[in-house]
Amino acid sequence: MTDPTTDLLPVGLEDRLPAAARALTRARRAALDAMDAHGYDRVIPPLVEFESSMATRMSGVATRRMFRFTDPDSLRTLALRSDITVQVGRIAATSLASAPRPLRLCYAGEVATIASDQLDPARERLQLGAELIGSDSAAAAGEIVNLAIEALAAAGATGISVDFTLPDLVDTLAESVLPLPAERVDDVRRELDAKDAGALKAVGGEAYLPLLYAAGPFEKAVERLQAIDAGGVLASRIDGLREIADRIGASARVTLDPAERHGFQYQSWFGFTLYAEGARGTLGRGGTYRLGGGEPATGFSLYIDPLVDALGPAPAGDLLYLPAGHDLEVAARLRAIGWRTVAALGDGEDAAMLGCTHRLDGSEPRPI
Amino acid sequence: MTDPTTDLLPVGLEDRLPAAARALTRARRAALDAMDAHGYDRVIPPLVEFESSMATRMSGVATRRMFRFTDPDSLRTLALRSDITVQVGRIAATSLASAPRPLRLCYAGEVATIASDQLDPARERLQLGAELIGSDSAAAAGEIVNLAIEALAAAGATGISVDFTLPDLVDTLAESVLPLPAERVDDVRRELDAKDAGALKAVGGEAYLPLLYAAGPFEKAVERLQAIDAGGVLASRIDGLREIADRIGASARVTLDPAERHGFQYQSWFGFTLYAEGARGTLGRGGTYRLGGGEPATGFSLYIDPLVDALGPAPAGDLLYLPAGHDLEVAARLRAIGWRTVAALGDGEDAAMLGCTHRLDGSEPRPI
Repeated sequence: MTDPTTDLLPVGLEDRLPAAARALTRARRAALDAMDAHGYDRVIPPLVEFESSMATRMSGVATRRMFRFTDPDSLRTLALRSDITVQVGRIAATSLASAPRPLRLCYAGEVATIASDQLDPARERLQLGAELIGSDSAAAAGEIVNLAIEALAAAGATGISVDFTLPDLVDTLAESVLPLPAERVDDVRRELDAKDAGALKAVGGEAYLPLLYAAGPFEKAVERLQAIDAGGVLASRIDGLREIADRIGASARVTLDPAERHGFQYQSWFGFTLYAEGARGTLGRGGTYRLGGGEPATGFSLYIDPLVDALGPAPAGDLLYLPAGHDLEVAARLRAIGWRTVAALGDGEDAAMLGCTHRLDGSEPRPI
Repeated sequence: MTDPTTDLLPVGLEDRLPAAARALTRARRAALDAMDAHGYDRVIPPLVEFESSMATRMSGVATRRMFRFTDPDSLRTLALRSDITVQVGRIAATSLASAPRPLRLCYAGEVATIASDQLDPARERLQLGAELIGSDSAAAAGEIVNLAIEALAAAGATGISVDFTLPDLVDTLAESVLPLPAERVDDVRRELDAKDAGALKAVGGEAYLPLLYAAGPFEKAVERLQAIDAGGVLASRIDGLREIADRIGASARVTLDPAERHGFQYQSWFGFTLYAEGARGTLGRGGTYRLGGGEPATGFSLYIDPLVDALGPAPAGDLLYLPAGHDLEVAARLRAIGWRTVAALGDGEDAAMLGCTHRLDGSEPRPI
């Protein structure tokens, strides 16, 4: 039996009804306001673009996962965006190419993919984020990680934790400290990512085994990593990680999984993943990268739908019924100080059934 | 020569850069807040739905103007929404079918069409609106028209005017006062809409000529309409129009063009169009209608992009530069009272060039 109500929408697409929409609207505004307060200017790119510009600027986006169609105007293929980061990168590299650096931009909007992934059936999500264009230094990464935590907390997250990673770790080590034949680098990366010790040995990556045990709470994990790095090729990266972790302080729990690479294929030296207590899966990720033209950048994306689901529906709050013939000026004055009102459309309405908690009596709201 | 920057986006699709995005974000929030204050609960439908459910619930939506694609999951045709009204109607008739009436819902989101229309090259627009489900009375229409004016004013419109129309006027008159053969009704409607007196005569609609001159400022126009309505079949409609106009008072200029029908093919007895000084074209429209299942409803949609364009870029406001080594707590406190800050990433930055108006000196913001 198919529920005729839910069958009205395709799998992975859903309506947010009043209580959920209220919660999502509040969380979205709060996160945008946090980014704005740190000097990040909002940009609003379109829902639809040429597939080619979505695809080429940053290689992280698989266009086969996008909704695509032919543009009757240009006869070129258009795509519904699946990632706003790419669009912000395009804006930074074109319309804002001559804006002073560092350039701070933020965004919020819906993104969609034609197929859901295994972990998450949703095909449409709200994406929020910030990009710091012109720098991928530890200072830039520290600012971005802290902003991501602050935006997530503003959206209602508690018990936030951040997991750091070094996406180019294997490449860096393979060049000197733990030499690997070039043809083995991909295998070793894959098995490290899979955390499969047996397979790691089998592909000749035995020397990389200690990395599997260098994951955990930041201080301990970074010490183990330092112990592995006999030649000191990771010294600047480790200093960077410490600088970022210092800035986070008590606002989030920090862990390090230096060999984690899934989802960070396009990040350079630093990546991070965000979690919060009670919210399913990752709430966002970010890191350092380079734009198409080679310009360094650091940024993050948040997907707050699971957080809003975990927070539960927002309370509706007080609602004031305005009986027929009420004083319009009194009603306007009450709205100005924050009352939500519902005006009578006719006689015989049941104010309580309409969700009203108060009724206007002359110029006084009285509890129902 | 094609400008390589603008060529990056398909015709009719554009980025909102910081100053424009700031203005649009402010206007959108203000309009949503106005609807919320009047007890309209926000719903957030998805960007993409089955084409069939976008098409059938209200016949006003031409699916050939939508971006369409095949869903790999259901193998059915999906469409990118071109109108949120249809989605809100679906929600009212399904998930919220048993919610008490009158049901007040509002929405805001992007809509897209594959082809632009002649008057407006935009293929993506922000649509905001409210629907009052369960009533199409004059009281409902009065509430909706006033809310539309209030939302538009909150978004920054000044010099607002509202043009009323009676979408089913010809059908009503043709039944009794000004009888017409059934096969002539469409012709007469079309020529009245085109305001072509010659053609109107040619199709046998001479008796309808006075309607062409019953357009103008509300009071005079409604008197002329009353004079035409010898049989009084329009009496309840005219009373309704007066009731709605009375409620508007001084908040907008009211005109009446009783035979205007373009864009109101799916409205029942009442329709209205909104304009504001300095903003190109119509900013919105609305009226009474019936949902697929026959339930009466009244609503409006606003398209505020031209208004935001007319208002011009929003001022960036003060921006406080936080030099390297600044006190993080002082900075957080200043943000809490409304300062926007930009933190130094390194030495040698030019705060003024980054748009900063102030620099933090100890715990004091000082003008640069």
